[in-house]
Amino acid sequence: MFKLTILGCHSATPSENKHTSSQILEVNGNLFLIDCGEGTQMQLRKAKVRFTRIKHIFISHLHGDHFFGLIGLISTFRLLGRSAPLNVYGPKGIKQIVTLQLKMSNSWTDYPLNFHELSSPKSELIYEDDSISVSTLPLDHRIYTNGFLFTAKVNNRKINTDATKGLDLESFHYSKLQKGYSIELSDGTFFENQELTLDPEIPKRYAYCSDTAYNEDLISLIKGVDLLYHEATFLEKHADLAMKTKHSTAFQAAKIAAAANVKALLLGHYSSRYSEKLDFLKEASKAFETIFLSEDLKTFSI
Amino acid sequence: MFKLTILGCHSATPSENKHTSSQILEVNGNLFLIDCGEGTQMQLRKAKVRFTRIKHIFISHLHGDHFFGLIGLISTFRLLGRSAPLNVYGPKGIKQIVTLQLKMSNSWTDYPLNFHELSSPKSELIYEDDSISVSTLPLDHRIYTNGFLFTAKVNNRKINTDATKGLDLESFHYSKLQKGYSIELSDGTFFENQELTLDPEIPKRYAYCSDTAYNEDLISLIKGVDLLYHEATFLEKHADLAMKTKHSTAFQAAKIAAAANVKALLLGHYSSRYSEKLDFLKEASKAFETIFLSEDLKTFSI
Repeated sequence: MFKLTILGCHSATPSENKHTSSQILEVNGNLFLIDCGEGTQMQLRKAKVRFTRIKHIFISHLHGDHFFGLIGLISTFRLLGRSAPLNVYGPKGIKQIVTLQLKMSNSWTDYPLNFHELSSPKSELIYEDDSISVSTLPLDHRIYTNGFLFTAKVNNRKINTDATKGLDLESFHYSKLQKGYSIELSDGTFFENQELTLDPEIPKRYAYCSDTAYNEDLISLIKGVDLLYHEATFLEKHADLAMKTKHSTAFQAAKIAAAANVKALLLGHYSSRYSEKLDFLKEASKAFETIFLSEDLKTFSI
Repeated sequence: MFKLTILGCHSATPSENKHTSSQILEVNGNLFLIDCGEGTQMQLRKAKVRFTRIKHIFISHLHGDHFFGLIGLISTFRLLGRSAPLNVYGPKGIKQIVTLQLKMSNSWTDYPLNFHELSSPKSELIYEDDSISVSTLPLDHRIYTNGFLFTAKVNNRKINTDATKGLDLESFHYSKLQKGYSIELSDGTFFENQELTLDPEIPKRYAYCSDTAYNEDLISLIKGVDLLYHEATFLEKHADLAMKTKHSTAFQAAKIAAAANVKALLLGHYSSRYSEKLDFLKEASKAFETIFLSEDLKTFSI
């Protein structure tokens, strides 16, 4: 299961109760930070996230509302005595921005700080471990921008406890069953794997897409994902502004969600010109059914 | 009169209720921003400061807790449609840090953004207008750091309304009197200036000193100021840490205040290791009498 916590979901400028883009995705106990607007470290504290659990930070693009909090978080990790490596994935240039500031302040990190700079216009695999892979989703914005697709790996098969009840199984039997093997007990009894196991959960997929103009190229990359976060900076009445600034309307976000046949759509990156978030939901509902609205510090289970 | 609003007075890392260094000094309706830690723009909104009134920003040094909010504020000014020039005074290097980020985000400001980079080890005049002058206070910290001394200009003489009662004075008479001239009425009556005026208020002076080790060189530069903000990162029980990190203890701040014979001392830049701010006051009281404690969003009149 994925657990997604929205730290900020507002565009452009932060204010007292509106934080700019940042999210924490939890997968098997590992935390992935996605974007890092100014004040993200304060939002992390509000959300009671343990800083040491963050090992990977993904930055979509170098507009301030998506990364001005990064240098502060990197510095705070140092002040908190971090020793574990930190990996930052983001557009080419991000390393120069961070290292210039560390140099000027004579405050190099005591922990390994690894930058993985991105410049490809095509989707590419940028991270992989035993439980998840992360690839880029090229977006269409005013500067080089990527969304990110988080894909869980195939899980182990589940033990069917109704079927194993009363059997004299050792722990290695369970382990073999979970990996899909059939087993033979010490008395010679043989069980096909599927007699004692159930299909695993289908691996979850989460797609983060902010910021982007309406972009049909995205559809094939996010087909059927469990949750799509798609920016909805504007409503249709400002579609001209969306086009000019290379953002999307709520309706356009819903059209992408429908065309990609995703399971659910999460809207965010709202412009501060609108006071009523429900208007985004209403508009998007014309093109898609299962829609949620981002709110700062709200958590979603995937 | 000066009005000083503390936006943040905590050292190192910001958290939900502890903001890093930033202050707003109001002089004759003009606002001067002093330091700009992460989240300063949110604090400015909480303090209900009109962003357009900020024309000058003074940055003491390039440690993150004093300037990580600058780039966000500069960007927000652009997004709010600012056209008035903004002047930033700070250590050499500050221009490169800001402009690199504006370049990478392809977001040059539409308003004139002027940098006044500082590198002198001696006190120098860096700003002057009709009502105030600002000069640097070289501090002793781990990297190049300046405090700032704000000195109001000599005010006009005050009309002694008891003395002018019944006299047939024209507006140009008042104007001459305020500027210190004697006057002659149309009937030939002559008045020495001091017969009709009172001494003006003595011009106020505010000294901002953060961050610095105990530094007696400072004393001659801040003699008799109306208010001295002096950092007090540590208590005496951690005097070794203060020395090592080139910070001051509350007691050391008070010793400087006493030696400079200032009118009042304002403590701040507290380390988060202490939970009780009153301990700073208690310790400083051993060396100086009139002491105030900084608190986020608290305002002081000078």
